[in-house]
Amino acid sequence: MARGKFITLEGGEGVGKSTNLRYLTDWLRAREIPFVQTREPGGTPLAEQLRELLLCRREERVDPTAELLMVFAARAQHLAEVILPALERGEWVVCDRFTDATYAYQGGGRQLDLGLIAQLEQTVQGGLRPDRILLLDLDPQVGLERASRTGAADRFESEQLAFFRRVREAYLARAEADPARYAVIDAAQALESVQRDLGEQLESLLD
Amino acid sequence: MARGKFITLEGGEGVGKSTNLRYLTDWLRAREIPFVQTREPGGTPLAEQLRELLLCRREERVDPTAELLMVFAARAQHLAEVILPALERGEWVVCDRFTDATYAYQGGGRQLDLGLIAQLEQTVQGGLRPDRILLLDLDPQVGLERASRTGAADRFESEQLAFFRRVREAYLARAEADPARYAVIDAAQALESVQRDLGEQLESLLD
Ligand SMILES: Nc1ncnc2c1ncn2[C@@H]1O[C@H](COP(=O)(O)OP(=O)(O)OP(=O)(O)O)[C@@H](O)[C@H]1O
Ligand SMILES: Nc1ncnc2c1ncn2[C@@H]1O[C@H](COP(=O)(O)OP(=O)(O)OP(=O)(O)O)[C@@H](O)[C@H]1O
Ligand SMILES: [Mg+2]
Ligand SMILES: [Mg+2]
Repeated sequence: MARGKFITLEGGEGVGKSTNLRYLTDWLRAREIPFVQTREPGGTPLAEQLRELLLCRREERVDPTAELLMVFAARAQHLAEVILPALERGEWVVCDRFTDATYAYQGGGRQLDLGLIAQLEQTVQGGLRPDRILLLDLDPQVGLERASRTGAADRFESEQLAFFRRVREAYLARAEADPARYAVIDAAQALESVQRDLGEQLESLLD
Repeated sequence: MARGKFITLEGGEGVGKSTNLRYLTDWLRAREIPFVQTREPGGTPLAEQLRELLLCRREERVDPTAELLMVFAARAQHLAEVILPALERGEWVVCDRFTDATYAYQGGGRQLDLGLIAQLEQTVQGGLRPDRILLLDLDPQVGLERASRTGAADRFESEQLAFFRRVREAYLARAEADPARYAVIDAAQALESVQRDLGEQLESLLD
C-alpha cells in the first residue's frame, strides 16, 4: 500500500491556517481520500498538555531552549502516536503547523541557532519531511489584526511586531531554499482566491 | 565572589535521596553557608508542570524521545531561572536528582542512545557539571520496597525490576568513569552510617 501524503499548513498569526484546514479536509472528503487532521503543538493528549504549557501566559520568563525542547517533545509524541501510524496506513495527514513553525518562531522569532533546530529535527524525525508545505504569507500587521478578533492573545501572540516580521522572513527563506516542497500562497487575497490556489496545490499532489 | 558548589543526590527509587537532602541542608545551615535546595524534574513553576506531565500515569504510551526532551526542557528552565543565578550569587545548590538520573533512567532504563543524551547535556548545560554527585547505591528490590511505603507508584515506579537494575548499573558505570566527581555511598546501611559518609563528602568539599 502507498504511504499517505503529509501536508502542512504554515504561516504567522491570523493568516488563515485554521480556516483553510477545513477547505483541505473538504477537498479530501470529496475525493474519498482517507486522512487524519491534526495540529501542532498538540495532536495527542500528552502533546496537547505540552501545547497548553507552551501557550499559556505566565509570570515566569520561559527559557528559549526550554521552549524549543518542549516543542520537539510534543512533536516526537505526535509523530510516534499519530502521524507515522496514519501515513503507514496509507492515510493522508493534514497538519496545522509543523517543524517549519519551529524554524520560524524559535529560529526566526527567538533567534535560536538554526543548526540546533536542524539537529533536533534529525533526532525526532529522521528523514521524515512534509510532502508539501502550504505557506500562507501575509503582512504580520494584517494577520495580527485578523487574529485579534478571535480571542485573547496567547504567549506568542503577545510578542512585538518585530518578532513576527522575523517569523515571516524565516518562513519565506525556507520556502526559497526548497521551492519544490513549498507553495507560497498570498494570504492577503480574498478567501476564494486563497482556496483556488490551495486547490491547485492539492491537485498537483495527486499526480 | 566565589561561585557556589553544586551538589546532586542521585540513586534509584527509595534509596533515601529525599531523606538525606534534609541532612545536607542541616549541615549547610550549621555552617552558615547560603544555599538553594531544589529537585529535578522541577524546581520552577514551569518545570514542576513538566514534572507532573512526566510522572503521571497515563493511558497513552509515552515515546522515549519525547520523555527525554521533556526532561531536558525542564532542566533548561531550572538552570536558567534557579541553578545558575544561585551559583553566581555564591550560594550552594543541593539538588535531588540531575542529569545523572537522565543517563540512568532514559539511558539505562529506557535504553536511549547515550550519545544523544550527551548532545542534549551539552546543548542545555554547556560546560556545567555538578561539583559532587552523591550516589546512594542500593539493590533496587530493597529500594522499591522502601519506596512503596510512601504513596502510590508514579509512571516510573511502575516499571519492571529489570528496568531498575539497568538504572543502577548505569549510575554505577558513570561513577566508575569519573571517580573524582562521584561518591558512591552504600544506602543499605543504617541511616546514621549513610549520613556519616555524606558528612565526610561535604567536609571534603570545603577544602
Ligand atoms: N483570506 C482571508 N481574508 C480575510 N479574512 C480572513 C482570510 N482568511 C482567514 N480570515 C479570517 O482571519 C481570522 C484568522 O483566521 P484563522 O484563525 O484561520 O488564522 P490562523 O492562521 O489559524 O491563526 P492562528 O495563527 O491564530 O491560529 C479569522 O477571523 C478568519 O475568518
Ligand atoms: N538508610 C535507610 N535505611 C532504612 N530506610 C531508609 C533509609 N533511608 C531512607 N529510608 C526510608 O526509605 C523510604 C524512602 O526514602 P526516600 O523517600 O528518602 O527515598 P528517595 O530516594 O527520595 O525515593 P524516591 O526515588 O521515591 O524519591 C522512606 O520511608 C525512608 O524513611
Ligand atoms: Mg489557527
Ligand atoms: Mg525522593
